[in-house]
Amino acid sequence: MIVVFKKGTNSDNIEYVRKKLEEYGFKVNISMSGEATIMGALGNESALRDTPLLSLPGVEKVIPILKPYKLVSKDFKNEETVLDIKGVKIGGGNVAVMAGPCSVEGRDMLFAIAERASKAGAKILRGGAFKPRTSPYVFQGLGEEGLKYLREAADEYGMLVITELMDPRDMDLICKYTDIVQIGARNMQNFRLLRELGTIRMPVMLKRGLSATLKEFLMAAEYVAAGGNDEIILCERGIRTFETETRNTLDLSAIPVLKSLTHLPVVADPSHGTGRRDCILPMSQASIAAGADGIMVEVHNCPEEAMSDGDQSILPDDFDILMDRIDIIAKTIGRTLNR
Amino acid sequence: MIVVFKKGTNSDNIEYVRKKLEEYGFKVNISMSGEATIMGALGNESALRDTPLLSLPGVEKVIPILKPYKLVSKDFKNEETVLDIKGVKIGGGNVAVMAGPCSVEGRDMLFAIAERASKAGAKILRGGAFKPRTSPYVFQGLGEEGLKYLREAADEYGMLVITELMDPRDMDLICKYTDIVQIGARNMQNFRLLRELGTIRMPVMLKRGLSATLKEFLMAAEYVAAGGNDEIILCERGIRTFETETRNTLDLSAIPVLKSLTHLPVVADPSHGTGRRDCILPMSQASIAAGADGIMVEVHNCPEEAMSDGDQSILPDDFDILMDRIDIIAKTIGRTLNR
Amino acid sequence: MIVVFKKGTNSDNIEYVRKKLEEYGFKVNISMSGEATIMGALGNESALRDTPLLSLPGVEKVIPILKPYKLVSKDFKNEETVLDIKGVKIGGGNVAVMAGPCSVEGRDMLFAIAERASKAGAKILRGGAFKPRTSPYVFQGLGEEGLKYLREAADEYGMLVITELMDPRDMDLICKYTDIVQIGARNMQNFRLLRELGTIRMPVMLKRGLSATLKEFLMAAEYVAAGGNDEIILCERGIRTFETETRNTLDLSAIPVLKSLTHLPVVADPSHGTGRRDCILPMSQASIAAGADGIMVEVHNCPEEAMSDGDQSILPDDFDILMDRIDIIAKTIGRTLNR
Amino acid sequence: MIVVFKKGTNSDNIEYVRKKLEEYGFKVNISMSGEATIMGALGNESALRDTPLLSLPGVEKVIPILKPYKLVSKDFKNEETVLDIKGVKIGGGNVAVMAGPCSVEGRDMLFAIAERASKAGAKILRGGAFKPRTSPYVFQGLGEEGLKYLREAADEYGMLVITELMDPRDMDLICKYTDIVQIGARNMQNFRLLRELGTIRMPVMLKRGLSATLKEFLMAAEYVAAGGNDEIILCERGIRTFETETRNTLDLSAIPVLKSLTHLPVVADPSHGTGRRDCILPMSQASIAAGADGIMVEVHNCPEEAMSDGDQSILPDDFDILMDRIDIIAKTIGRTLNR
Repeated sequence: MIVVFKKGTNSDNIEYVRKKLEEYGFKVNISMSGEATIMGALGNESALRDTPLLSLPGVEKVIPILKPYKLVSKDFKNEETVLDIKGVKIGGGNVAVMAGPCSVEGRDMLFAIAERASKAGAKILRGGAFKPRTSPYVFQGLGEEGLKYLREAADEYGMLVITELMDPRDMDLICKYTDIVQIGARNMQNFRLLRELGTIRMPVMLKRGLSATLKEFLMAAEYVAAGGNDEIILCERGIRTFETETRNTLDLSAIPVLKSLTHLPVVADPSHGTGRRDCILPMSQASIAAGADGIMVEVHNCPEEAMSDGDQSILPDDFDILMDRIDIIAKTIGRTLNR
Repeated sequence: MIVVFKKGTNSDNIEYVRKKLEEYGFKVNISMSGEATIMGALGNESALRDTPLLSLPGVEKVIPILKPYKLVSKDFKNEETVLDIKGVKIGGGNVAVMAGPCSVEGRDMLFAIAERASKAGAKILRGGAFKPRTSPYVFQGLGEEGLKYLREAADEYGMLVITELMDPRDMDLICKYTDIVQIGARNMQNFRLLRELGTIRMPVMLKRGLSATLKEFLMAAEYVAAGGNDEIILCERGIRTFETETRNTLDLSAIPVLKSLTHLPVVADPSHGTGRRDCILPMSQASIAAGADGIMVEVHNCPEEAMSDGDQSILPDDFDILMDRIDIIAKTIGRTLNR
Repeated sequence: MIVVFKKGTNSDNIEYVRKKLEEYGFKVNISMSGEATIMGALGNESALRDTPLLSLPGVEKVIPILKPYKLVSKDFKNEETVLDIKGVKIGGGNVAVMAGPCSVEGRDMLFAIAERASKAGAKILRGGAFKPRTSPYVFQGLGEEGLKYLREAADEYGMLVITELMDPRDMDLICKYTDIVQIGARNMQNFRLLRELGTIRMPVMLKRGLSATLKEFLMAAEYVAAGGNDEIILCERGIRTFETETRNTLDLSAIPVLKSLTHLPVVADPSHGTGRRDCILPMSQASIAAGADGIMVEVHNCPEEAMSDGDQSILPDDFDILMDRIDIIAKTIGRTLNR
Repeated sequence: MIVVFKKGTNSDNIEYVRKKLEEYGFKVNISMSGEATIMGALGNESALRDTPLLSLPGVEKVIPILKPYKLVSKDFKNEETVLDIKGVKIGGGNVAVMAGPCSVEGRDMLFAIAERASKAGAKILRGGAFKPRTSPYVFQGLGEEGLKYLREAADEYGMLVITELMDPRDMDLICKYTDIVQIGARNMQNFRLLRELGTIRMPVMLKRGLSATLKEFLMAAEYVAAGGNDEIILCERGIRTFETETRNTLDLSAIPVLKSLTHLPVVADPSHGTGRRDCILPMSQASIAAGADGIMVEVHNCPEEAMSDGDQSILPDDFDILMDRIDIIAKTIGRTLNR
C-alpha cells in the first residue's frame, strides 16, 4: 500500500499514519522530496480495507499494491489448473466446447440439438432451465422439467451438463442434474450465492459481470475458492460499452490478461458476448486464437422459433464449420481441441 | 415495434413477417420508398420478446416502440406517488432524508449518530447489518444484532429504519426489524429477489445498478410492482464511468428523466455516488436542486474509525449545515423538506 | 512513482531498475517483505514518460504518483483564479451565465435572444458560427457573417462574446470578434490547437471531452498554460455513458472534484450535457448547487425553428425563472451571481 | 424516421407533424392503436437533422431509420473495396501487415526495424514523426527529419510508408513522404481535417475514436468520401472501458460488424488496442481470426529504450512467430496474407 501525502503536510500527521500502519503490522518506509512525501507500507492490506485512511489528515491518496485475491492468483499457484470433469479436460492447453440452446424449450428440440452438437465435437451441453429475464412478463424457463431433459439428452449423447443457478434455494435441485454450475453475469457479485458455491463439490463456471473489471471478476472467484471449492472456470461473456450494434462487447483481451493473473481456465461466450448470429463464427475463431480454453456457443436447429435469444444462435451446419476451424486454429497456437 | 427491412428484400419475405406479426395480434402498417421498407406494428410487444424476428430473412433491424414497463410508468398513473410510511411522506413535493452509518458497528455509536441525525431533521435511519463486500476476507456486518440496534435507535429517536436485504432467505428476519427494505445496486437484477419483494407488504427502496440504464432500472421496479407491491422508491447511487477520482459518477440527470417516465419517488445517494467526503455536501445540494424527493447520506461521528466506507461519511456538524442548506434549496424550487 | 516487482524477482533486476531511476535523478527507496518488493522513486516523472519501465525484467506494475499537470494545479497556486474579462468576473465566488442560441442563424433572431438573455442577467452571449457536425450533409454555420452578428448583438446589449474555434487557421478571424475562445469537446485533445491557444492573449474556455477523465481534462488545460496563457475556464459538458434517455450524462461531481485539484474556474453546460429541454432548468439549478462558477445555457425564442440542437434550448420566459432560482441557490451556498 | 407520439396526443398535433414532414418531401404513414400512435416517414432524413421535431407538441420520441452514411455503406456498394497501393493489396480477402516503431527515434534504429519487419513479411512501415502526446512536457516527434528516415527506410526495404497527420497545415509535408495518411483516434472527429482529406489523392487510414460508436466511425469516413476520396481504411484501435489492466479494450467484434455495414477494408491495432506487450501476439492472432484485412503492430528492436510506448512493442523475433501464425490462421478462414 502506498500512502501519498498532500504537499506541505506536517510531520505529525505523517507520523500518526506511520504509527497507525505499524499497529496493523505493516512495515513502513517513507520517501520525501520537495515534490511529495510518500509512504510505502507492506503487510496485510485486506486488514485495512475497513479503515478509512483517506480520512486521516494530510492523506491525499491511498494506492493498494497487493492483489486483493490470493487463492486464484498465479502468485499462489503458478502452473495452469486443468479441470478433469468426468474425463473432459479444460485448461492447460485443453480446449473444450459447450454448446446447446439458450433455454430448454422441449425434449425433442433439445435431443436434436444435442445430437448435432455432440457429433460436431462439443463435449458439454448447455441450456437454461431457470432464465434470468429483464421482464417479468416473458418466458422464465421450464424449471425442473428442463433440468431432466438436459440430463437425459447429455447422457444419451455422452456429454456433460452445464446450467445456471440463480437462487441459493435451488442449489440442491440444480446439483442433482448438472455437472457444472453456471453463475450468470448478473449474479457475479451476488456474494451470498458465491459463498454457497464454496461449500459444494462441483465445478463452477463464473460469468463476468456486465461492467465488472477483471479484478472484481477474480475477487468473485476468490469468494468461491475461499469457501473451499477450487474447481472454477472463468467465462468472458461481453461487457457493456457505448456500442449499440452489438448487444455487448466481447472483451477478448481479457483472455491473455486473465491468464497472466490467474491459474484458472478461461473460456469465452461469443453468443451472449455479441448477441448477433453473424458474429458467432468470427468471434469463436478469435476467442480460440486469443488463447481461450474453450467457448460456449448457442446452437439451435431452428432459431426462428427459439423462445429466447434465437438471434444469437447458430445452425448445426454452421456449427460444424466452426468446430473444424477452431480445431486448426487451436493446433496453430499449440493447443488441443478435445472433440 | 418497427421492423426495418434490408434494401432489396423481396415482397415474399415482407409478407411472411406481416403474417407472423398479425398472428400475434399486431396491427401492421407498411411504408415503402426507394430508400427503405419499414413496417410499423402495434400490439403486445412483450409477447414477441421471445421471437427472434431478427432471424427472419430480409429483416435488418427491429426497434421496440412501447415502453417495456407498465405499472411504474407515467402512462399508467399520471400523478406522482406519495408514500406515507408511518407518517413520513416521500414524493409529490415531500422531501425526506435518510441518514446513518454505512454499517452498524455497535450500539453506542449507532445511538450517538441517530441522535444527531434526528436532531438535524433526518426522519429515516440507515445502516447495514448484512454488507455486500467485494472481498470475502473483510467485515460482513453484525447480522441480527445490528438489526436490533437499528430498531432500538430508531424507536428511541422517532425515526424509521431502512436496511439492506441481500438474500431471499433473510426476508422475514429483515422485515421484522425494518420499515423500508433496501435492495443494493448489485442486486438490482437479482430477479428472484425482486419477485419475492412483490409479495411483501412493506416499502422497498431499489438502488440503480452500477451500469444499469434507466429502462433497466424501471424494469426492475416493474418486477416488484408486477408481484403486487407498489410502494417503491428509486435511488440513484452513482454509475460506473471512466473517472477514477470518484468511486462512481452520481448521475443527477437521472432525477428529472426518471420523473418524466415514472410516478415513483426518486432519491439520490451522494455518499456511495461519489465515495468522497468532500463531495457529499455539494452533491446533496445538487441532488435536491435537481428535484430529488430525498437523499440518503452516510453520517459518522468518527469516520476515521468506521469499519466500512468511512471515506464517504460526513460528521454530524457538517450534516447540520447540509440540512439547513437543502431546506432552503427545496423551498426555492417549490418543495418541502420534512424535518 | 512506485515500481512493484513480480514475486520472486531476483535482486539483480531490482538493482538494475534502481540504477536506471537514479540516473534520471530519482531518489529511490526500496521496501521488501515476503509478499512483495516495491520501490518508491521521487523525481521528475514526466522525464520517464517515454521510458518503458514496464518492459524491464521483473517489473509488474509502474504507478505514477505525482500529478502530471503543474501550472493548473492547486499545488502550484492555492487561491482560486478569478478571471476579470472586461469587467465580468468568473471564479472565486463569482458566478456568471453564458446564454444564447446553439448556432447563429440570423441577425434578427440573435438580437431578439440577446436582448432577453441580457435582461435576465446573462453577461456573456454564446453562439456558434463554425459548427462541428457529425454529418457532412448538414448546416455547418454562417462563418464570419455569424461572428459579425455575435459581436454586434453583444455590443448592443452590453455582453461579452464566446464562440468556438475549430481550426488553427481560423484563430485570427475568431479572435477579431470574440472575447472568449471556446474549444469544443471533440477538440479537447487536439494538441496542436491547444498549443496555439497558449500563444494568444485571450481567455479560453475548454470543454471536457466526451470520454475524458478529469486528469486528461486538466492536462489539456496544462497545454494551454504551458504555452503562456493562464486565462482558462473549464467546462463540464456531459460525458458519454450507457444511458440513452439523455444525449450525455452531465457529471456534476466533476465540479467539486475539479475545484479540489485546480485553481481554475469551472462551469457547466446543462444543454449539451443532457440534450433535453426538460432537464435544463433542474440541471442548471443543480450545477450551481454543486458549486459551479457559471453555466452555459442554450436559449432560443422559437426552438421549433432552430437550425441545430433546438431540442436542448429553453425559451426566454423559462430562462427568466432559471436566473431567479440560481440567484437564490448561489446565495444559499455563499456565492454571488453577477447579473 | 419514426415519430412516436405521447399517449393521448390530440389529432391536431399529429396532423401538424404530418404536414411538416410532408413539406420536407417525406412519405408519411400513421399507425394508431389504444396503446400508441406512431408515424413512419420515409424521405431525406439528413434534411431534418436540424429541425427539432422533439420540440413539437405531442412528440415523445423520434427514431431515425436510415443510416446517416451513404457512400461508405454496403447499400451503396455491395462488393468489398480492394485498395491497391503501389501493388500492396488490402481488402477483399487480402491481408496486409503494417509494422514499425511507435515513433521514429533515429535513422539507424528505424532501418534495423524496417529490415526485420520487411523480412518477416510486413509490407507497410509505420512510424510517427509528429506524435499526439497527452503531456506538453514530453517528446513530440522528430518532425520532417523523421519523415525523411521513414521514406528512406521504406524505399530501402521495398515497403510503403504510413504516418500520422495531426494538423491541416502539415498536409503537404506529410503527403510528400508517405503512401498512406493516418488519422489518429483523437482526431477522428476533427471535421475540418476530415474534410481536407477528401481533397487529396492518397489513401487514408482512419483510427476509431476512443469512445466512438461504429456509426460515428463510419460518419467520419463519410466526411472523407463525401469530399471525393474513397480510398479509406478503417482501423479498430481499442475503445475506452472500465478495465484498467489494459490501456484500452480492443473491440474485435467491430470487425465483423463493420464488414456487414461497409465495403471498406478494416484493420486492427493490437499494440494501441491493449497497451501490453504480452497481448500483442494473442490479439494479433485473434484479429485475423475475426476477419481483419490487416493489422498494425509496433515492433522495436530494443523496447527498453523506446522513446514512446515501448511497453506495447514486440521484438523482431516474436514478430517472426506472429507472422507465421497469422499466415496459417488467414488461410484457415479462406484469406491470403500478402507477405
